[in-house]
Amino acid sequence: MGEDSKQDGREGGALETLSERRCHGGVQGIYQHRSRATGTTMRLSVFVPPQAARAPVPVLYFLSGLTCSEENFTVKAGAQRYASERGLIIVAPDTSPRGPGVPDDEGWDLGQAASFYLDATRAPWATHFQMESYVVRELPALIERAFPARPGVRGVTGHSMGGHGALTLALRNPGVFTSVSAFAPIAAPTKCPWGHKAFSAYLGDDQARWAEHDASALLRARGPLKGRILVDQGDADGFLEEQLKPELLDAACAEVGQALTLRMQDGYDHSYYFVNTFMGDHVAHHADALL
Amino acid sequence: MGEDSKQDGREGGALETLSERRCHGGVQGIYQHRSRATGTTMRLSVFVPPQAARAPVPVLYFLSGLTCSEENFTVKAGAQRYASERGLIIVAPDTSPRGPGVPDDEGWDLGQAASFYLDATRAPWATHFQMESYVVRELPALIERAFPARPGVRGVTGHSMGGHGALTLALRNPGVFTSVSAFAPIAAPTKCPWGHKAFSAYLGDDQARWAEHDASALLRARGPLKGRILVDQGDADGFLEEQLKPELLDAACAEVGQALTLRMQDGYDHSYYFVNTFMGDHVAHHADALL
Repeated sequence: MGEDSKQDGREGGALETLSERRCHGGVQGIYQHRSRATGTTMRLSVFVPPQAARAPVPVLYFLSGLTCSEENFTVKAGAQRYASERGLIIVAPDTSPRGPGVPDDEGWDLGQAASFYLDATRAPWATHFQMESYVVRELPALIERAFPARPGVRGVTGHSMGGHGALTLALRNPGVFTSVSAFAPIAAPTKCPWGHKAFSAYLGDDQARWAEHDASALLRARGPLKGRILVDQGDADGFLEEQLKPELLDAACAEVGQALTLRMQDGYDHSYYFVNTFMGDHVAHHADALL
Repeated sequence: MGEDSKQDGREGGALETLSERRCHGGVQGIYQHRSRATGTTMRLSVFVPPQAARAPVPVLYFLSGLTCSEENFTVKAGAQRYASERGLIIVAPDTSPRGPGVPDDEGWDLGQAASFYLDATRAPWATHFQMESYVVRELPALIERAFPARPGVRGVTGHSMGGHGALTLALRNPGVFTSVSAFAPIAAPTKCPWGHKAFSAYLGDDQARWAEHDASALLRARGPLKGRILVDQGDADGFLEEQLKPELLDAACAEVGQALTLRMQDGYDHSYYFVNTFMGDHVAHHADALL
């Protein structure tokens, strides 16, 4: 992980190191780069395990939830220990474009830190809110150029809005991610208030467009992914009934023959204490598929 | 951990629950209570492992460093997983009194969040900065009344200023803590700028008083503790040479026959990424002694 490779400026700007710290035998770094997809400076967290000093390793992408940046996952989820044990790079991008000229909303569930990981088509969002292009194309290319990553060997997971992102980006972009999981995902956003607000702003009023970014609808439209999807959901999560609706994902998977392990976790809420608790199982799920 | 027990108001005021969240099969709570020692409302973090539902368990106290509150450890150190595996309660108090009428300093290394875990004797600090009395007497009594803790079965650890606190409180109060460890402790505060500033403010100019709160000096004055002390220290820690000085602790231990495992950790800095990396070893050190 020399400075040379991280200063490589092809496609989207050089990667600038903001911090690098030893952690569980590897290196936990925070970086930023100028993104071509979003037209902004994007921050990201990258953990490189010790195994990567010998040979390139697979990459697990973690997509964070509403109100988060790359930092919440990095300091709270405890993923580094597991990634170090199994030998995975973990990449956590920011949740949206930010900065001068980037539009926002007064609500915390739209705009900055609330991209819903799609390419917006409506003003004022379309200019910068191109997070599907960023996560699916620009970011993996950047990571596989600047870090000791095995090209094309990728898993994706995420929490809440990021769980929605993990599921929908995997379903919409076959072949990009080999393994998929989610923590308390927004599992059917066409059927919940968060999704209605975001999709109407980013995509407009045509609900046929919305269905193209709803994991439960995508499964019915496109059929199953190859691997088993792992989903953990706390049964004391305050957003469960109104916003998350894992039962609709469960029904869609059953209908199309998608292998799904949906675990309802007794007493857990929507916080990073929940994510931290089950992170080891998710890293194992991806490592088993990718290694 | 019923509401009844936590509302028990003897000695120091009732314990008020601010939040409780399921984590690694146990409960991570944040509480506050009116402290008799400090004369303020003190916050604390308590993790209760699943084993405590069956029988009382030992308690490990974690003392945090400069600028921290009870929150940094709780969200960043990753201790809950290990405490859940071994069956320890973990208690992390705030680092000083705070609130209306509590004095402070413009520097981050004196006053609020910088108590140095002693009982101050000088104005304006002496009124509220009575953290040794709080941590050694009031807090264990409160914990052993309100949670399923085995009375008198206690370990203590901490980070930086809190590592100093763990070492000095154990040495000054024989029998209170059975097991001791520290992460990057301020190991000889009479010989570093942080210690000079704090001790002259809290204790005055008589350096004989300072030595009573310096782990290396205390070892020479009082002799060794019964158990082995575990200390981890990153060799890329920016505070190592000027402020922390583990070599002086090492020399004092050698001189008095104190069993010490001092591990210099290659490439690690002073951050919670360092603490998180070695937290499992410290929980094991205490569990082996306490269980």
